[in-house]
Amino acid sequence: MTNRQVRLKARPAGIPQAEHFEIVDASVPAPREGQILVRNIYLSVEPAMRGWVSAVANYSEPVAIGAVMRSFAVGRVVESRHPDYRAGEFVTGMFGWQDYAAVDAEAVSRKVPDDGLPISTALGILGLNGLTAYFGLIDAGSPRAGQTVVVSTAAGAVGSCVGQIAKILGCRTVGIAGGPAKVRQCLEEFGYDAALDYKAADLDGALARACPQGVDVYFDNTAGAISDTVLSQLAIGARVVICGTASIASWDPPPQGPRVERHLLVKRARMQGIVIFDYAPRFAEGLAALSAWVREGRIRYREDILEGIEAAPGAIAGLYRGENQGKRLIRIAAEKP
Amino acid sequence: MTNRQVRLKARPAGIPQAEHFEIVDASVPAPREGQILVRNIYLSVEPAMRGWVSAVANYSEPVAIGAVMRSFAVGRVVESRHPDYRAGEFVTGMFGWQDYAAVDAEAVSRKVPDDGLPISTALGILGLNGLTAYFGLIDAGSPRAGQTVVVSTAAGAVGSCVGQIAKILGCRTVGIAGGPAKVRQCLEEFGYDAALDYKAADLDGALARACPQGVDVYFDNTAGAISDTVLSQLAIGARVVICGTASIASWDPPPQGPRVERHLLVKRARMQGIVIFDYAPRFAEGLAALSAWVREGRIRYREDILEGIEAAPGAIAGLYRGENQGKRLIRIAAEKP
Repeated sequence: MTNRQVRLKARPAGIPQAEHFEIVDASVPAPREGQILVRNIYLSVEPAMRGWVSAVANYSEPVAIGAVMRSFAVGRVVESRHPDYRAGEFVTGMFGWQDYAAVDAEAVSRKVPDDGLPISTALGILGLNGLTAYFGLIDAGSPRAGQTVVVSTAAGAVGSCVGQIAKILGCRTVGIAGGPAKVRQCLEEFGYDAALDYKAADLDGALARACPQGVDVYFDNTAGAISDTVLSQLAIGARVVICGTASIASWDPPPQGPRVERHLLVKRARMQGIVIFDYAPRFAEGLAALSAWVREGRIRYREDILEGIEAAPGAIAGLYRGENQGKRLIRIAAEKP
Repeated sequence: MTNRQVRLKARPAGIPQAEHFEIVDASVPAPREGQILVRNIYLSVEPAMRGWVSAVANYSEPVAIGAVMRSFAVGRVVESRHPDYRAGEFVTGMFGWQDYAAVDAEAVSRKVPDDGLPISTALGILGLNGLTAYFGLIDAGSPRAGQTVVVSTAAGAVGSCVGQIAKILGCRTVGIAGGPAKVRQCLEEFGYDAALDYKAADLDGALARACPQGVDVYFDNTAGAISDTVLSQLAIGARVVICGTASIASWDPPPQGPRVERHLLVKRARMQGIVIFDYAPRFAEGLAALSAWVREGRIRYREDILEGIEAAPGAIAGLYRGENQGKRLIRIAAEKP
């Protein structure tokens, strides 16, 4: 029985490509006292991984060259040497891009209940995506009913959830996405009041028509030209939530753009960066709200499931090309043994 | 008896220069029922005036061509047709760059008590400068004792007050100013723990040495290259208060600079613009604190007093050249009639 691992082979300057990783056959580790052995079933692929392998200062230590790629995963406990876990339970946590992980309890985010919702949701709508949407919007965005909330990458795993939560809170929601298919998805699947195609001409004019009173909350997953347009149309007292910078290919050196100070000053607006891990003490609150909304059908989500660990090395670059629809996962084993 | 008025003659593209104004002899207005007639003694000159005469969207209507230049002033009531005011009282408010103003009570910010502090303080340390420092720092900056507060235009009318309030609150204060004289003033007069000359080489290195734990609060009066340096050295959870953009000659079109999103994201930092008029309901609180600190000698201030209304047209441009030390005022009459 081998343990296939995806290891970081070289440090990318920008977006990690397939050639920055290698797949290696290792042996299945034996859990030490206090550890559990997890058989990973779904591996996560996320934009933040670019930061995790970057040498530039970040909110976490960079993944070392030769180390297994850091990743959330959901899997089944196959052996437990920890009193809180039993073989057969599903767990999610930082288990890496590999078949098997022997981990301390600290690496486990939570047990995944066998309650009818797919276990894959633990990596998306009931994982960091949903929690990022929930806390980013509610805590940093401070939306109030009747206000206008604009979301970039509006059909994405985080963005689609932001739009739906904002709608539940009574806001008017405007999504920005790339291409007619995603725009249609925003309107038909995620219930945005308006959806704009940033690849079409005159985003500025389209945004002005969709937000005649200005933008009260901008949940920003892209930075770049889309944000430049939105920032020029903020309402007084606007809140800009900086969640991701998907449109920026490299931060080394930092790209230039129009300075934002005058927008913030004239509109008494604030821009705030969020990192979801800071909200860990409140995750239970977020999961309770999100689970209820998913069960009630008030929040819809999409998953983009790749098959086999061989798909992992190229999967981040694909995200940045926008080829996925919804949360990208890699299925590497069957849910039932 | 004539009423000399400084009127806006032409709309400047960038910083208003002397040629954008003209001095005109008008007649002294008669106050209507409910109005007071004020003899202005000190006129204010402030960086924000650039915005007030700009055609670009702003927090207030632009001053019309041919109109008296909008300005705060402090003066003496010479005739009152309003029950709350009596001739001989000092008042401050939006009275314009002119000898005499007949105004409604709404134009009066407050009466200036004859309590031993110079009436000119109503336009500076006990006026919008002090209040901007107080609310900008305390409300938007949220400083905590032991944290590092960095201030740009640190020896200026607002900046010097920010540094001294931060010190009173138990913060470590680092001032950024232009040239050795202002740096010395920061250290000797305003009590900064460290002061850096942005005109000297290697501001980045000097800032890093002055802020080994990073910058917790940045009170920004400049934008531009100074801010680019400070933003690259924020501490986790930093707050950036956008108060002014003195280093930007024109916002039309907006100048380019390094994008800020990654700093905000990685450091979970926030940038927030403030406009002091939003705090009007709390001005009494701010004035009480500032007056007490001035009387106790815990806050020092400087005034840069020009003589005669003829100095007004060129006075804004001089501010942007940095030729003043402290709050710039124009004395156009004696305090005692």
